[in-house]
Amino acid sequence: MKDHHLPQGYNLRPLEKEDYVKGYLHTLQTLTSVGDISQFQFNEVVDYWKSQPKTYKNLVITNSESEVVAVGSLIVETKMIHGCSKVGHIEDIAVRPDQQGKKLGLYLVRELVKLAKEEDCYKVILDCDPRNEVFYEKCGMHRAGLEMEIRF
Amino acid sequence: MKDHHLPQGYNLRPLEKEDYVKGYLHTLQTLTSVGDISQFQFNEVVDYWKSQPKTYKNLVITNSESEVVAVGSLIVETKMIHGCSKVGHIEDIAVRPDQQGKKLGLYLVRELVKLAKEEDCYKVILDCDPRNEVFYEKCGMHRAGLEMEIRF
Repeated sequence: MKDHHLPQGYNLRPLEKEDYVKGYLHTLQTLTSVGDISQFQFNEVVDYWKSQPKTYKNLVITNSESEVVAVGSLIVETKMIHGCSKVGHIEDIAVRPDQQGKKLGLYLVRELVKLAKEEDCYKVILDCDPRNEVFYEKCGMHRAGLEMEIRF
Repeated sequence: MKDHHLPQGYNLRPLEKEDYVKGYLHTLQTLTSVGDISQFQFNEVVDYWKSQPKTYKNLVITNSESEVVAVGSLIVETKMIHGCSKVGHIEDIAVRPDQQGKKLGLYLVRELVKLAKEEDCYKVILDCDPRNEVFYEKCGMHRAGLEMEIRF
């Protein structure tokens, strides 16, 4: 698979609380409704994630103005099957609309996949809309099954 | 939806370490390869799960001989989207082959869904083989998207 690099001035790093004022929620909103989240609530979620560092891995890409322009998460699940193995779940990938076309999403997903491999996961999975299947194929993934849901 | 009950002498309860000698792994093997897991390794995984009680919820159904005949897990993921919401992931549902036809799987999935609702999840999701779509529809779920994966 071809290696991709971030555009100059762009960086990948773990999510920090300061990302509240750097546009994290605005970028996340590209994906779905986020709601009116205060700095206090944001900090609570980030603190919760950071209290379980083996489970939650949250990355952001910033541009040269230090704005958060892409976000994504990996949830590492410890299982009993396959000799006490682990599975990585990729969740909530979002790229700010004016930043699309720079392959930031591709870069981010590949970094999350690498992270899952480093964490000894035997596989990485994610659920997506059928419209996004081609994008995730570019990330090296393939169709494995159906996602079923109940909404409350 | 019709209410189902467990057959007489059957019980639903959280997973315990003693389930190692009650056939937990044998039942789990119905789903996929489990490997040669020692009591020590089993305890380590159970301890890890119990150290994160807000994330890992593992249930078993026992029969009148106290054997573990069905197993299933719920992983509760804390998200930022939808006003700091939560999503329940149902994982690793298995029913011992000689116990199938008693609707144990249906009962277990519904209990995991109830648990997710009690935990304030806005939805519960799971990934399955297309062959199992009809079963999960009986559990009240419907098709939501595609599961994509990379195996290492």
